[in-house]
Amino acid sequence: MDNQTKFLTYNYPENFSLERGGSLPGIRIAYHTFGHLNKDGDNCIWVCHALTANSDVADWWPNTVVPEGFLDPDKYFIVCANILGSCYGTTGPLSINPETGEPWYDTFPKLTIRDVVKAHILLADHLKLKSIFSLIGSSVGGFQAIEWAVMQPERFRSVVLIATAAFASPWTIAIDETQRMSIFADKTYGEKNPDAGKDGLAAARAIGLLTYRGGKGYNLTQQDQHTDEVPDYHRACSYQRHQGDKLVKRFDAYSYVTILDTFDTHNVGRGRNGIAEALKLITCPVVCVGITTDMIFTPEEMRALSDMIPNSSYKEISSQFGHDGFLVEYSLLKSIINDFFSTIPPHHP
Amino acid sequence: MDNQTKFLTYNYPENFSLERGGSLPGIRIAYHTFGHLNKDGDNCIWVCHALTANSDVADWWPNTVVPEGFLDPDKYFIVCANILGSCYGTTGPLSINPETGEPWYDTFPKLTIRDVVKAHILLADHLKLKSIFSLIGSSVGGFQAIEWAVMQPERFRSVVLIATAAFASPWTIAIDETQRMSIFADKTYGEKNPDAGKDGLAAARAIGLLTYRGGKGYNLTQQDQHTDEVPDYHRACSYQRHQGDKLVKRFDAYSYVTILDTFDTHNVGRGRNGIAEALKLITCPVVCVGITTDMIFTPEEMRALSDMIPNSSYKEISSQFGHDGFLVEYSLLKSIINDFFSTIPPHHP
Repeated sequence: MDNQTKFLTYNYPENFSLERGGSLPGIRIAYHTFGHLNKDGDNCIWVCHALTANSDVADWWPNTVVPEGFLDPDKYFIVCANILGSCYGTTGPLSINPETGEPWYDTFPKLTIRDVVKAHILLADHLKLKSIFSLIGSSVGGFQAIEWAVMQPERFRSVVLIATAAFASPWTIAIDETQRMSIFADKTYGEKNPDAGKDGLAAARAIGLLTYRGGKGYNLTQQDQHTDEVPDYHRACSYQRHQGDKLVKRFDAYSYVTILDTFDTHNVGRGRNGIAEALKLITCPVVCVGITTDMIFTPEEMRALSDMIPNSSYKEISSQFGHDGFLVEYSLLKSIINDFFSTIPPHHP
Repeated sequence: MDNQTKFLTYNYPENFSLERGGSLPGIRIAYHTFGHLNKDGDNCIWVCHALTANSDVADWWPNTVVPEGFLDPDKYFIVCANILGSCYGTTGPLSINPETGEPWYDTFPKLTIRDVVKAHILLADHLKLKSIFSLIGSSVGGFQAIEWAVMQPERFRSVVLIATAAFASPWTIAIDETQRMSIFADKTYGEKNPDAGKDGLAAARAIGLLTYRGGKGYNLTQQDQHTDEVPDYHRACSYQRHQGDKLVKRFDAYSYVTILDTFDTHNVGRGRNGIAEALKLITCPVVCVGITTDMIFTPEEMRALSDMIPNSSYKEISSQFGHDGFLVEYSLLKSIINDFFSTIPPHHP
């Protein structure tokens, strides 16, 4: 891409304490920026990424970081940081534990969404982002966005929450546990190398995909030709294996387990008198976007989330692609988000 | 139970040829019967069981084999046979291959639903069941029922199809492939013992459960108590592991893979000019029952199936329990099926 795109690293040298106890001896945060911060320093859009994505929003969220897009780099200063516990440059299980000189692997400490957001805050402070125009999170990226908006409501002039939730539901936890079961069933998990548990990881990815895409999505895209012979091949099988293999080439089982664990304890109401009270702390305008066929974060749940946030409106995207709709339906999202942005009052520094 | 219940075995000594090629050197069929065949031999209800069930309907389908139930043993002669490839007494991968003197394990031949039905037909002939009052199949039990009703339409006076399909959709195949990926990720799969691949099997079961129960089911039954501490335990995790462990104690990975493979090639239209033409062969009255929250065989798909069968009516069960609704909502089913049975014309031998 052009010179407006930067891939950078921020090293925080101090002790980084963790919500579940223990600490990391300093952390590294890898992040991308697109476009330029304006002179008032108030045109930043911060994007929180989901599960296995990285800081390169333009890569994993196609057709959004484009002129006239809702992440228009000519207009906004887009920031996305790889989350703590991941494997795209930010400190995670494959980073070296300075105490042993070896990668952490399965000894990496357990994180929470609040730890992940605390790392975002360190970077936002480092970048001197006092008034962020918008905070956007889809899926478990939305876990971070909700948590951050509650922790620092004054920092944001708007928030966009797409297909996400204020706490991890039993259903999402069951999906995560099933993925962990697949990884742990692979007896190579636990070995001290980055390939450990990779067949289990491929299966876990395939499980995830079932829940991201849903029945309509598969039946739309993976139909077999019906023949008079008993088929030896099914497109759906090949698709599942291919997607598993693809993930294994770019991710590792230790980071995957670390991040799943992180999601499962997400609860914006913890220590704040419950979810309803916590969400009342978000004061800026919010738009909550649900996807008609999303089986992970259903439209009903997104509407209920929106109803609990004081200054929020609810919008719905009609899609056949389930939870994946947030990646696929960029033109519907563009219309909703650009309309929403046009209603945000200007900032008076 | 009382002396009306019998657990029996039928040994078919001849060569049993298979649709995908090859054959089994004789097969054994384990089956249950409840009640008594009347003197006209026309009061049989044949139940086709699903994935990991066995021939003991009264055990796996609670509150159905009871007086006044739709499987009333005082009124009907109920038959259920353990399917070919399973591990509850019928020939399957843990049976001895007479050529080697050892269990088949992963050398057991690949089956189709038509092979499974061919075994049912052998047993029905052996039992001299010329006019079967009703053929009932739920889920992949319905795969067998549809196939059989098309193969021998004159044999049945009615058919009940619950949460099933005329062919394996890409979505159901993707679910099965994901389960196989979990089993194969367990490196003990392939070892020559009945416990091989058991951690993978537990994960596969957990995957199945996600799709049987769905989000509403989990969120209804597995909510955690929200606390001010980061939770170390989630009910949903414990539930998934528990269900996986339970299956591993009563099933084996070889039979599981054999049966999944069998389902994936299900297509009642194969060699019959397509599904629509095949379904036209079913001439008796049929009721198709959909479940509102079933994500595997959706109510829309069940309605479409019913529309393709000449003499079929569609009924819907409202349930929060997804595909599992067919096991849980026995009183709603009882009302639908008993009403349907009351419309079936008497048999004139």
